[in-house]
Amino acid sequence: MNIQQVIDDINADVRSRLSQFEGAVASYIPALAEVDSEQFAMAVHTVDGQTFSTGDVEVPFTIQSVSKVLTLTLALQRYGNSLWHRVGKEPSGTAFNSLTQLEFEQGIPRNPFINAGAIVTCDALYSRLSAPTHHMLETVRWLSGNPRVCINQTVSRSEFQHRHRNAAMAHLMTSFGNFENDVEEVLKVYFGFCAIEMNCQELARTFGYLANRGVDIASGERILTSKQNSQLNSLLFTSGLYDAAGDFAYRVGMPGKSGVGGAIVAVVPGQFAVSVWSPKLNAFGNSSAGLYALEQFADRLSLHLF
Amino acid sequence: MNIQQVIDDINADVRSRLSQFEGAVASYIPALAEVDSEQFAMAVHTVDGQTFSTGDVEVPFTIQSVSKVLTLTLALQRYGNSLWHRVGKEPSGTAFNSLTQLEFEQGIPRNPFINAGAIVTCDALYSRLSAPTHHMLETVRWLSGNPRVCINQTVSRSEFQHRHRNAAMAHLMTSFGNFENDVEEVLKVYFGFCAIEMNCQELARTFGYLANRGVDIASGERILTSKQNSQLNSLLFTSGLYDAAGDFAYRVGMPGKSGVGGAIVAVVPGQFAVSVWSPKLNAFGNSSAGLYALEQFADRLSLHLF
Amino acid sequence: MNIQQVIDDINADVRSRLSQFEGAVASYIPALAEVDSEQFAMAVHTVDGQTFSTGDVEVPFTIQSVSKVLTLTLALQRYGNSLWHRVGKEPSGTAFNSLTQLEFEQGIPRNPFINAGAIVTCDALYSRLSAPTHHMLETVRWLSGNPRVCINQTVSRSEFQHRHRNAAMAHLMTSFGNFENDVEEVLKVYFGFCAIEMNCQELARTFGYLANRGVDIASGERILTSKQNSQLNSLLFTSGLYDAAGDFAYRVGMPGKSGVGGAIVAVVPGQFAVSVWSPKLNAFGNSSAGLYALEQFADRLSLHLF
Amino acid sequence: MNIQQVIDDINADVRSRLSQFEGAVASYIPALAEVDSEQFAMAVHTVDGQTFSTGDVEVPFTIQSVSKVLTLTLALQRYGNSLWHRVGKEPSGTAFNSLTQLEFEQGIPRNPFINAGAIVTCDALYSRLSAPTHHMLETVRWLSGNPRVCINQTVSRSEFQHRHRNAAMAHLMTSFGNFENDVEEVLKVYFGFCAIEMNCQELARTFGYLANRGVDIASGERILTSKQNSQLNSLLFTSGLYDAAGDFAYRVGMPGKSGVGGAIVAVVPGQFAVSVWSPKLNAFGNSSAGLYALEQFADRLSLHLF
Repeated sequence: MNIQQVIDDINADVRSRLSQFEGAVASYIPALAEVDSEQFAMAVHTVDGQTFSTGDVEVPFTIQSVSKVLTLTLALQRYGNSLWHRVGKEPSGTAFNSLTQLEFEQGIPRNPFINAGAIVTCDALYSRLSAPTHHMLETVRWLSGNPRVCINQTVSRSEFQHRHRNAAMAHLMTSFGNFENDVEEVLKVYFGFCAIEMNCQELARTFGYLANRGVDIASGERILTSKQNSQLNSLLFTSGLYDAAGDFAYRVGMPGKSGVGGAIVAVVPGQFAVSVWSPKLNAFGNSSAGLYALEQFADRLSLHLF
Repeated sequence: MNIQQVIDDINADVRSRLSQFEGAVASYIPALAEVDSEQFAMAVHTVDGQTFSTGDVEVPFTIQSVSKVLTLTLALQRYGNSLWHRVGKEPSGTAFNSLTQLEFEQGIPRNPFINAGAIVTCDALYSRLSAPTHHMLETVRWLSGNPRVCINQTVSRSEFQHRHRNAAMAHLMTSFGNFENDVEEVLKVYFGFCAIEMNCQELARTFGYLANRGVDIASGERILTSKQNSQLNSLLFTSGLYDAAGDFAYRVGMPGKSGVGGAIVAVVPGQFAVSVWSPKLNAFGNSSAGLYALEQFADRLSLHLF
Repeated sequence: MNIQQVIDDINADVRSRLSQFEGAVASYIPALAEVDSEQFAMAVHTVDGQTFSTGDVEVPFTIQSVSKVLTLTLALQRYGNSLWHRVGKEPSGTAFNSLTQLEFEQGIPRNPFINAGAIVTCDALYSRLSAPTHHMLETVRWLSGNPRVCINQTVSRSEFQHRHRNAAMAHLMTSFGNFENDVEEVLKVYFGFCAIEMNCQELARTFGYLANRGVDIASGERILTSKQNSQLNSLLFTSGLYDAAGDFAYRVGMPGKSGVGGAIVAVVPGQFAVSVWSPKLNAFGNSSAGLYALEQFADRLSLHLF
Repeated sequence: MNIQQVIDDINADVRSRLSQFEGAVASYIPALAEVDSEQFAMAVHTVDGQTFSTGDVEVPFTIQSVSKVLTLTLALQRYGNSLWHRVGKEPSGTAFNSLTQLEFEQGIPRNPFINAGAIVTCDALYSRLSAPTHHMLETVRWLSGNPRVCINQTVSRSEFQHRHRNAAMAHLMTSFGNFENDVEEVLKVYFGFCAIEMNCQELARTFGYLANRGVDIASGERILTSKQNSQLNSLLFTSGLYDAAGDFAYRVGMPGKSGVGGAIVAVVPGQFAVSVWSPKLNAFGNSSAGLYALEQFADRLSLHLF
């Protein structure tokens, strides 16, 4: 089936009722609250290097929690399996920002895709890289194919001002001996990663390696070993969508990761990475239109992995 | 690669160090505690109807929580998506028998593979079937190909005597309005399902439909719609191994379900169902040797889905 | 100051705005929901044997959780300090019917005044008395001075039908090895105790021993040792009003115990027991008008113990 | 009975088996870990101005959590009942440093004697006082009668370095809108208060006002209204000894407050304040010998309030 046709159909369908999707844009910081909610974009990047896109593909957005996949990728490159002493591999089973679970499990976050887990992964990176933000930007510019990808400093600074729940988690991990660097320094890096800005087409291209056994499609360079890449996809399948991972697995059946900026990336191993973006979020913090579009896409192309 | 050769190799490897695996047989009821821990069997049932097996394939065991997959299958046949009003689709993120979570989530179990979820699914079946135990046995006899499959009454009665934590969950669900029948009657049916006894080869054959888009391989009869089957596999992937589902997804990368009798069933969609059995359990209640064998099997045949 | 005058003043004050107190009568069973909410009574029984009363003093009501004080008293007579192996002495700090805490603390209820604690105390009594209900009624008839005090069977049976949360706690305690008898048999006894019916004047007289160093005022017979009586009062001070014990201690400053029937009993050691009854309950399950009346009473007589 | 004789007897008794009490000195910071564990002192300050003391009464120690009573006293002077919008009055029912409860109750600590509650009270003071540390020292020097009472800066700085669990709580409260000032600035003040150093005799004298209806015994100056003082004693009774408040109420039956430096202060309203100090702590963080001494003292003088 023609991928371009499918995503154009989905775009037309979604756009005709953008105002009807449930939810609202993230509003915990002003910079996110101001985003026009009635936008939608979708892109597919195939393992043979083709890109298909539709909708508001030129509009940049902050990737937010989707950056956690990149943070984990960089950390796995440096730590391998030893990273798992500091963060678990299990679904979280509670709201994505829970201190209760972190206290109960003595400072070891359940997985690298909840906030605590991404922050501790960021702390691990901070210990090994002299300029983690610079290195992350280099990586993202290379993977996305856009050398001008930047951090939205307004968003990043605003997130830092509203850092307190994340700071609480980092201090709690410090108290349990699972944090190595200064809390505020690591949080600045973490919020910088979250505020990386790109458009939907660049997003699909950035994560092409997840569909390509860990190898960047354009350059042919290996990002992760094939096994690490499989494992990362498994973690995305079980834990990528916060407290709605099971529902996403049930309905869409792909490894995926969402962010409160409204982006979702999903992977069909051996075929392509697919990205959607629409800022209105449902009660679980996932893009409502994005979820709908991915479910349509999976149905139309019979992509459910099982 | 030759499947029989692979599983024979694994059998030889596992058997050479059966005594060294961590853990112990389940001991919460006498009938389980008496099982000889140094046994191992493995079987593969392919979608084209071939069966491969190795080890103690003639020894019957109680399938315990693996029966939850059958209970869910029968309930999905009768309720379809309306079943999900009574039980969730999310990984549990805590120990498999937690009342805390059940109280916090007001009597709706997180998924059908934790005890509370299987019990409420059993309650749903009880409401629709005049003889649920008889119907389950008919189904299992047909799927397994062994018309003499039975319930081990000693095990079933002993589990009922030690029912109190499960009874607590059922009463708690009743108090939240999520239970329809008499607690003790439903528990008797539930423990009967858990005490279904078969051998490892029959187990692989029973679950062949999960690998075959919901169609029984021998008879060609449809058990679940293709979509329901995909969804059930997704749930197994995210929640099939209690609190170690993430680790299993990470290391083995297949949908799977374990039971405290020492059995694990896993699925490679479009190819085969694979079963292992070895009674010694690790701290998460999963067969230690079984997990090792499945990981070897996935590695040898490069089966990781992602 | 004249006690009769004080309580008559309070009665006039409360009665003038009975309809304005927040809350509603308990409605989890029909028999309680039908009670006329605009009733109020108050009584004082002094250590020298005088009784003062005002308001609807002839109207009988079920004493509900106030019976937990009697259950504990009978159990302390039989077990002494060994009772504390089965139930704690600490305030609960969460809602009065929490399973979470009971699971976290492995089946040992925090104190004998939360439901789980009273049920396990009742289980202890059941193990030592051949006819616990008969014995309790004998005791209450003697202490209250009314040989016709009875159990309201309609209420008792209705509570049993709605037993499921309490049954969940009893089964959970059984699973932790902290329950000795059949859950349903003990619950029948427990709900019988809760449904003991008397009027407000009888209630004050029943608990006179708490103010009199453990000695029944009328007969001079010892109910508890002086030390046990002090200890029981301490427990009432820290844990007698569910999750509002701290607020009651802060505002009223006496040992006390409330029930969802609308009764509250409080104690001024060495002086008197005081009882109030008014069926409308606040969000914590305590009588709104009753709390107000006791606070007025404590203020007018400068009774705050500290 | 002769108070001096009683406490001398207790001193002799305790001293003869100081090494046998369970537990160990606090070791979470080096400065506390170095304290000689085999020390004991006891003092009584009566409402008519007499002081009795025994044991190591010249040895200064940091008062740690006992300072929370002073923090609350200063805050009640400034905020009155409006303080209770920011902190509760209920016993905590869990370990004294729980983030779980704080998250569950949305940033409102259960009471002012758990860490979170004292920190938020300190934050309230910080908002109203230009030099809170100076003001606190002035107050303590006046109440204790020793104008040279100081903060142990080594202890205070060391506690700040190990601040992370407390910082987590302060940031969590900030995220819930229940914190007004910079987390680190408030924590410096808080740890300063904890590190106030005095001896056992000074400690009894400092808290004489709690036994004297809120009036400083030496100067006759009012510290709290009589009602506030009663209420504060009620809170101490229900919540002053962390998770062992119920047991202390049961065994000793007085309002009291303990600290991890090994001090405990208790109050017999209208009679005296009594202080004990011995650094070895039991599992609940309370002085083992101190508890024993207070229980003996209460028994010898029949002080149980109920």
